[in-house]
Amino acid sequence: MPFVYRFEEAGGLGRELLGGKGYALAEMARAGFPVPPGFTITTGACRLFHRSGKVPEGLWDEVERGIAALEEATGRAFGGAGLPLLVSVRSGAPVSMPGMMDTILNLGLTERGVEGLAAATQNPRFAWDAYRRLLAMYGEVVLGVEAAVFANLLEAMKAERGAERDLDLSAEDLAELAARFKRAIEERGHRFPEEPWEQLREAVLAVFKSWDNPRARVYRRHYQIPEDLCTAVNVQAMVFGNLGEDSGTGVGFTRNPATGKKELYGEYLKNAQGEDVVAGVRTPEPLSRLKEENPALYAEIAAVAEKLERHFRDMQDFEFTVERGKLYLLQSRAGKRTPEAAVRIAVDLVDEGLISEEEALLKVDAGSLPALLRARVDPASAPEPVGRGLPASPGAAVGHAVLSPEAAEDWTARGFDVILVRTETSPEDITGMFLAKGILTARGGMTSHAAVVARGMGVPAVVGTASLRVEPGKKRFFLGEHELKEGDLISIDGSTGAVYLGEVALLESGAGEELKRLLSWADRIRTLGVRANADTPEDAQKARELGAEGIGLVRTEHMFFEEEKLRWMRALILADDEAEAKVALKRLFDYQKQDFKGILRAMDGLPVTIRFLDPPLHEFLPPLVELERKEAQGALAPGEAKLLKQVRALAEQNPMLGFRGIRLLLIRPEILTMQLEALLAATRELRAEGYDPRPEAMLPLISDAREVEQAFERLEPVFERYGFRIPLGTMIETPRAALTAGRIAPLVEFFSYGTNDLTQLTYGISRDDAGKFLPDYLESRVFPYDPTERLDEEGVGRLLALSVREGREKNPDLKLGLCGEHGGEAHSVKFAARIGLDYVSASPYRVLTARLAAAQAEVEKRASG
Amino acid sequence: MPFVYRFEEAGGLGRELLGGKGYALAEMARAGFPVPPGFTITTGACRLFHRSGKVPEGLWDEVERGIAALEEATGRAFGGAGLPLLVSVRSGAPVSMPGMMDTILNLGLTERGVEGLAAATQNPRFAWDAYRRLLAMYGEVVLGVEAAVFANLLEAMKAERGAERDLDLSAEDLAELAARFKRAIEERGHRFPEEPWEQLREAVLAVFKSWDNPRARVYRRHYQIPEDLCTAVNVQAMVFGNLGEDSGTGVGFTRNPATGKKELYGEYLKNAQGEDVVAGVRTPEPLSRLKEENPALYAEIAAVAEKLERHFRDMQDFEFTVERGKLYLLQSRAGKRTPEAAVRIAVDLVDEGLISEEEALLKVDAGSLPALLRARVDPASAPEPVGRGLPASPGAAVGHAVLSPEAAEDWTARGFDVILVRTETSPEDITGMFLAKGILTARGGMTSHAAVVARGMGVPAVVGTASLRVEPGKKRFFLGEHELKEGDLISIDGSTGAVYLGEVALLESGAGEELKRLLSWADRIRTLGVRANADTPEDAQKARELGAEGIGLVRTEHMFFEEEKLRWMRALILADDEAEAKVALKRLFDYQKQDFKGILRAMDGLPVTIRFLDPPLHEFLPPLVELERKEAQGALAPGEAKLLKQVRALAEQNPMLGFRGIRLLLIRPEILTMQLEALLAATRELRAEGYDPRPEAMLPLISDAREVEQAFERLEPVFERYGFRIPLGTMIETPRAALTAGRIAPLVEFFSYGTNDLTQLTYGISRDDAGKFLPDYLESRVFPYDPTERLDEEGVGRLLALSVREGREKNPDLKLGLCGEHGGEAHSVKFAARIGLDYVSASPYRVLTARLAAAQAEVEKRASG
Repeated sequence: MPFVYRFEEAGGLGRELLGGKGYALAEMARAGFPVPPGFTITTGACRLFHRSGKVPEGLWDEVERGIAALEEATGRAFGGAGLPLLVSVRSGAPVSMPGMMDTILNLGLTERGVEGLAAATQNPRFAWDAYRRLLAMYGEVVLGVEAAVFANLLEAMKAERGAERDLDLSAEDLAELAARFKRAIEERGHRFPEEPWEQLREAVLAVFKSWDNPRARVYRRHYQIPEDLCTAVNVQAMVFGNLGEDSGTGVGFTRNPATGKKELYGEYLKNAQGEDVVAGVRTPEPLSRLKEENPALYAEIAAVAEKLERHFRDMQDFEFTVERGKLYLLQSRAGKRTPEAAVRIAVDLVDEGLISEEEALLKVDAGSLPALLRARVDPASAPEPVGRGLPASPGAAVGHAVLSPEAAEDWTARGFDVILVRTETSPEDITGMFLAKGILTARGGMTSHAAVVARGMGVPAVVGTASLRVEPGKKRFFLGEHELKEGDLISIDGSTGAVYLGEVALLESGAGEELKRLLSWADRIRTLGVRANADTPEDAQKARELGAEGIGLVRTEHMFFEEEKLRWMRALILADDEAEAKVALKRLFDYQKQDFKGILRAMDGLPVTIRFLDPPLHEFLPPLVELERKEAQGALAPGEAKLLKQVRALAEQNPMLGFRGIRLLLIRPEILTMQLEALLAATRELRAEGYDPRPEAMLPLISDAREVEQAFERLEPVFERYGFRIPLGTMIETPRAALTAGRIAPLVEFFSYGTNDLTQLTYGISRDDAGKFLPDYLESRVFPYDPTERLDEEGVGRLLALSVREGREKNPDLKLGLCGEHGGEAHSVKFAARIGLDYVSASPYRVLTARLAAAQAEVEKRASG
Repeated sequence: MPFVYRFEEAGGLGRELLGGKGYALAEMARAGFPVPPGFTITTGACRLFHRSGKVPEGLWDEVERGIAALEEATGRAFGGAGLPLLVSVRSGAPVSMPGMMDTILNLGLTERGVEGLAAATQNPRFAWDAYRRLLAMYGEVVLGVEAAVFANLLEAMKAERGAERDLDLSAEDLAELAARFKRAIEERGHRFPEEPWEQLREAVLAVFKSWDNPRARVYRRHYQIPEDLCTAVNVQAMVFGNLGEDSGTGVGFTRNPATGKKELYGEYLKNAQGEDVVAGVRTPEPLSRLKEENPALYAEIAAVAEKLERHFRDMQDFEFTVERGKLYLLQSRAGKRTPEAAVRIAVDLVDEGLISEEEALLKVDAGSLPALLRARVDPASAPEPVGRGLPASPGAAVGHAVLSPEAAEDWTARGFDVILVRTETSPEDITGMFLAKGILTARGGMTSHAAVVARGMGVPAVVGTASLRVEPGKKRFFLGEHELKEGDLISIDGSTGAVYLGEVALLESGAGEELKRLLSWADRIRTLGVRANADTPEDAQKARELGAEGIGLVRTEHMFFEEEKLRWMRALILADDEAEAKVALKRLFDYQKQDFKGILRAMDGLPVTIRFLDPPLHEFLPPLVELERKEAQGALAPGEAKLLKQVRALAEQNPMLGFRGIRLLLIRPEILTMQLEALLAATRELRAEGYDPRPEAMLPLISDAREVEQAFERLEPVFERYGFRIPLGTMIETPRAALTAGRIAPLVEFFSYGTNDLTQLTYGISRDDAGKFLPDYLESRVFPYDPTERLDEEGVGRLLALSVREGREKNPDLKLGLCGEHGGEAHSVKFAARIGLDYVSASPYRVLTARLAAAQAEVEKRASG
C-alpha cells in the first residue's frame, strides 16, 4: 500500500488511513471545494514508524513524488528560485484531537528563498514574516525550543521599535528578528536546516513523534482514544492570508457550537496567517463584522459553509484563508459542541432533511445527557478553580461548606444551602448527603460511596480532590494553599471536577423539547430495556419521569441507615436472645414493608427488583476505631463495652470478601425471610388498594448454585404462607457465579449482573483503595480507562458473555439485566446490548444515557449487520 | 434394570451398584468363600427412593423373589414354623463408611416364631436372645428409640437377677426382657410389627433413610464422598454365633492395620453374635488366643484370610461367624490402616508379587504422607482433648504455652520447649513461630497465615480453635472452661486438630525404607514436576531432601520481617527524600542478595523462582489500631506521630484488593529493580564460587498484560547492566489474568498459578474472614469441601484450564506451574496433572504428597486412557 495519497486521489479512502483532516481534505477536493493542492501521508506510515522505530522504507521516495505533483499543480518549485513552493505540514489523526498535535507553516523557505519570494511578490515584509514564522514554528515543533523564546524576542523587538502590532514591524525588523531567532536556536545547540527537503523530512518525523507527546497522551486517555490509531500528516501548498489587506484568515462554525442555533459563527483576521488566530497572538473579529465590511466575501464564506454542511451532513468547524481576494478552504471537520448544542443540532438536521433519526442518535454523546438536566457553571464568568477532583456527579452547586452530617442539618435548619465536604463519605453520612446541594470529597474514585450515592440522588459531586484536606474536629479545611472554615461559601462543578472559592454564577439547564424528541426516537429504536437503581420512592419517581421502565436494583440496606431504623437494625444484631431479636425483626419488617410499598407504588405497573441485604453487619455498627479510641481513653459509655466486643467480633480484614450477602442471609435466615415477607405483605396491601405492584427479588454475592438452592428452600414456606409468588433471581457478581452460570440458571428466573463487585473481583481491585494506584495507572497508560467506570470487555465482559451463553443454554427463559454503575455508562450499555442482555439499570439521571446508548447500539448493529 | 441381585448372580457387577459390602459378598460367593446365602438391593433403588421420595415400583416383588430363593437355599421358611429363615439387613455404600450406617439382625423373627425356633434348636435361651436382640435393633434403627433404653433395661434385668454377664441370664429372663423391650417401644408410641414381611420392608426403608442421617452426612463431608452415591442393602440368611460354646463370632485383619506387618490380627468372641463385638458390649479376645485354644479353627481362619488377600489383592478386614463349628464369612473389605501401615502394605504386596508398583501407588493416601515424618500422639494413652481446631500442619507437639513472640524467646532461652498460642498470627510473629515446637491459634482457616507458615516450616499447628480465647496482656488463656496461664504445659496434634492439657505421650515417626521405595516408584512414573515453596535456605534444604526438584515460590517479603531488615524496610517506606530512600534500599539490597545466595546455593543446579514483593507496605509498619490507641492515650513516642500519619495514609479497607503486588512495584519501581539486582548479583557471585544457580523471577497480582510490559521495561536496563538474563514470568492469581492469559503469555517464559488468591477472588472470599461462615457452609453442605484447601475444579479450575489452553496457544514454550497451597493437596495435584501443568510447588513436607499424587494421576490416566 502506498504511504502517500494526493488529495484528489484519496477520495473514498477511510478516515482510519487518512486521518480526520486528510479525509476531509480529500472529500473536499473531490466535492470541488477550493482546497489548496496537497497530499496525505497515511496513519499506516506513522504506525510503522512507531512500531519499528525507523522511517518506513520508500516513504521519502513517495513524498518526493508528492512534492513533484504539487510543483506541477502550482507552477512553483520546492526550494526553487522566484516564488517558491511553500507547504504546510499538519498532523491529522483519525479522531479529532484539537490543539494536541503540531503544525508547521511556510515550510520549504530558506534564507536564500526569502530573497526570491520577496522579489516575486514584491513584498519583502511578507517574505521575512513568513521566514521568521517558519523559524519559530520549526524551532518549537521540530527542535523543541520553547515557544516563549521566540515570543519574547518578538516582544523585545516590538518594544525596541516602538511597534504596537506585529504588522508595525518592517521588513528589516523582521529580517533582524529572523537572525535573532536563528541565533537563539543555535545557542540552544540546534541547527535550522537551510535545505527544504531536510526541513520536510524532519517536520514529518516531528508530527509522527508528536503523536506520543504528553498532551496528546493525556487527551487520548481522557477521551479513551486507542493508542495505535496514529496520526496522518498532511502536506499542502501554502496560501497566504498575510499578503495585504485583501488577504486574511479565519475559522468558522456552520452553527453556533454553544447553543446549536443555525447561524454562521466564527472569526476572521485580516492580513494574517491562520496560526495567529489559533494561537491567540492577535485578536480576530467576529465573522458578523465581515458581513458589513465585505458582504461579497461573507456571502462566499456562507455559501461554502452551507455546502460543507450539506456535503458532510453535520455541523462543520472549518478553517479558511483569503489570498488576495481568493477564498481557500484549509480544513473542515465535525465541530465540537456543547451537549445542549449537540442535541439541538441533531434534531434540527433531521428536521432539515439532512440526516435520518438513526443518524441523529449517533451525533449525541450519550454520556453527556445527564449534565443537560443540571445547572452548570457559567463559563463566561467563572474564576480559576482552586482545586480539581473527579467529576463524579454532573451539575454545579453553590453552598456553605459543612464538614459533618450534623453541621449539614444545622446549617440547613438555619436556611442555608450547604455543600458537604468530607475526606470520604460512609453510609452514616446519608442524612447529610440528602440535605446537601453538592458533595465534595478528598478521597475516592468514580464509584466511591460518595460518587454512587450522589449520582443516585442527582446531587452534583466532586470526589477524589487531591488538594483537599478536611479537619472536621477543628471545623476547617484546606484547598491547596487556601485555608477555609466551616460555613465558608464554595462552588463545585460536578461535570468538570472544578472547585471554586465563593459563589460562581450558574446557568440553568438548557434541555428541552429537542431532548425529548431525540429520546423518543431512541426509545422507538432500542431493544435493550432501561431500568433505574433507586432506594426511595422519590428516586423511583424521578427515574420514572426520566424514562426508566422499572427499578433494576433496590439496595434494601439503604433503607436501614435512617436513625430510627438503624437503631432497630443494631438491636437485631446485638440481640442477646431470640425474644429480643424477634422484637427488632418485627419493627424492621414494618419499616421495610412501608418502604417497599412506597417504591412499588411509585413504579405501579413496572417491575421493581429488590436485592436482599448485602453489606456485612458491621456496617450498621459504629466504626471499630472510634470505639477503640474511646476505650483507650477510658471513655466508653455504659453498654458500649458490650458493643465494642461485638464490633470486634464482626470486624473483618477484607469486608468486601467477608461475611455478607448470601453468606449472611443463609446464616441469619430470619433477615432473609423477613425481607421477603415485607415485600409480599407490601404487594398484597397495594393490590388491595388497586395498584399493580410487580416485585422481583434477588440474592447478592452468590458463588455457588447450592447457595441459591438453600436460600430458596428458606423462602418457599413464606410464599406458601402468602399464597402467591414473585420472580426470584440472583446477582451475578463473583467470577465464580459467572463461571458456573449454567448451574445457577435453571434455579432462577433472572440474573442481574453486579458489575461493580464483578469488576473488583476480576481485577482484584477494591474501588475504595484504588485511589492509591489507579490515577498512576491511568496516567502511565497501564489501564487505558478506569474499569470501575467503563466496563472492561476483555476480562469482565468475557465473564458476562460466557455466562449469558451458558445461562440461556440451560434456561432459555432466563431474563438478564445489569445493575452495576456501568449500566449508566455509554460504552458499557452498548456492550450490554451487543451481548444480548434484556436490560440495564442505571442511577436515575443516567437513565438518559442508557436510553440513548442503547439506541446507538441498535443503530450500529443495523449498520454493521 | 433389576433392583435385587442374589450374591451368586451379582459377580462382576460394579461396586457403584452393589455397594462395597454387596460387591465383596458377590465376589466372595463367586470365588467360593463360605458366605451365607443372600441378595443385594442396589444403590439404584436407594437413589430412586431419595429422588422421588417413594418406594421404587416393583421393588417389593423383587425382594419377595429374593427371599423365596433364600428359603430354597436354606430349606427354612421366612416367618415359617419350626426353624425359621432369619435374615440380616445391612447397608453397604460404594465407599466404606464404617459405623455410619445401621444393621438389623435376626429379622423375620416374631413372638410366635420364637417358640418354633426354641423347639427346633432345643435352645429356648438362644431363641429369646435372638428375639430380644431383634427388638432392640429394630427399635433403635427403624423406630428411632434410643439405644440406651434397651441397654438400661438389660442392665436393670441383670442387676435384678444378680447376673454378671448377658450369658448368665436365663431363657425366662430374656423372654421377660423381650416383653419389657416391647413395652418400652409401645410406651414411646411405636409398634413392633409381628409380621416378618413388614419387618423386612421397614428395615430396608430404614437403611435407605439412614443414608441421610447426620452422622453419615458428617462422615461424607469429611471424606468428600458424593451425596448421590447412595447405599445398597444386603439381605442375608442369618448364621448364629451364639448357639453354644462351639459357636462364636469375630473380626480379622489380614495384616496389622497399625504397623502393616504381615500377621493375622483380630478378635474372637465365643457364643456371641457379631454385634456384641462391634458394639463393644462384651470384650472379645485376640485371635492369637484362639490359636492355642482351637488350632484347627485358627488355621481355617488363617487360610481364609490368605485366600481373601490373594483374591482381593489388598489387606482385608473381614467378619466371620462360626455356627456349631462351621466357619462363615459375613463380609470382607479393604481394611482401614494407618498411613505407616498403608505404605508398608503397599510395598510388601509388590514384593509378594500380588500387585504391581502402579497399583501400590494407588493404595496410599497421598495426603497422609507428611504426617509420616512427624511425631504423633500415642492413641493408646491420649486423654480426652479439651479443644479441637483445624489440623493445619501435621505432627504432634508438647510444650509450654507462650502468648507472644517475646515470651517464646524468653522461655526458649531458658531451655524450654514452647507452643505459641495466639488469637491469630501475623508476620510479626515469625520469630516466635520459628522457635515454637507447635502453633495454636483461635482464628483462621487451613490457609491462614499460621497454617501456611507452619506447614512451610514443618511445625505442627492447630488453627481456628473456636474454644480458645487468648489474653496476652493478662498472660492467660482459656480452652473452653479451662483457664490456663502462660507457661502451662499443653499438647497439640496437628494431624487431628486435638488440643490437650499437659503432656501427652508421643510416638516417633515410623516412616522408613518402604516410603523411600514407594516414592522412588512415584518419581519414575509421574510426569508432573514437584517443587517446593520456601523462603529460607533451611526450608530449601529440607525441601530438597524431601525430593523437591526446585523452588517454585520464594516469598521475598518474608525475608524482610526479621528485626534488622524490617527496620530498613520501614526506613525505605518512611523516607523523607530520595537520599534516605537510597540508603535504605542499599541495605535491603545487601540483605536480599545474601538471602538469595543462601537459597540458590541450597538449590544448586535446580530452578528457584523468586516472587517480587507482594504485600502492601502497611504490612511492614506497626498496626494502625495500636498507634491510634497510643494517640488516644496521649502516649505516642517522639517520631510516632509521623509514623501514625503514614500508617493512616497507607491504611486500606480491603488490603487484599489494594496497593500491593505489581501495583506497588510499578509505582515504587526502585524496589522492583533492587530485587532483580540483588538476584543477579547473587547469581554472579555464586557462579564465581563455582555453583550453578538457576534463578527465575515473577511478578505478583497481574491483572493486565500492560502491567507486565511496563515492569519488564523497568527490568531491562538491569539485565543490560549485568550482562545476562534470567527467565521472567508472572503469577496468575487474579481472574482477569487468567481470562487474558493469551495476551500475557507472549510476554513471559512462565506462568505460576497463585491459586490462593485466585480462589479468594473467584469466590469473593477472604480466607482471613471466612471463619465467620465457612464452617457453617461446610456443615450445611453449601460447599462440599473447603475451596481454599482443595482446588475448586468447576470455577477456579475452569479459569486454570482456559488460561492453560490460551496461554500455550499464544506461547507454545510457556512453562506452567502452580504455587498455591493447593500444590500440596492430593486432589488438586491430580487436577494440575490432568490439565497439563508442568509442575506444582508445595510447602516442603507436602512435597511428598505432591510426588505421590502426581504419580497417581499418571496411573489413573493410563488406566482410563
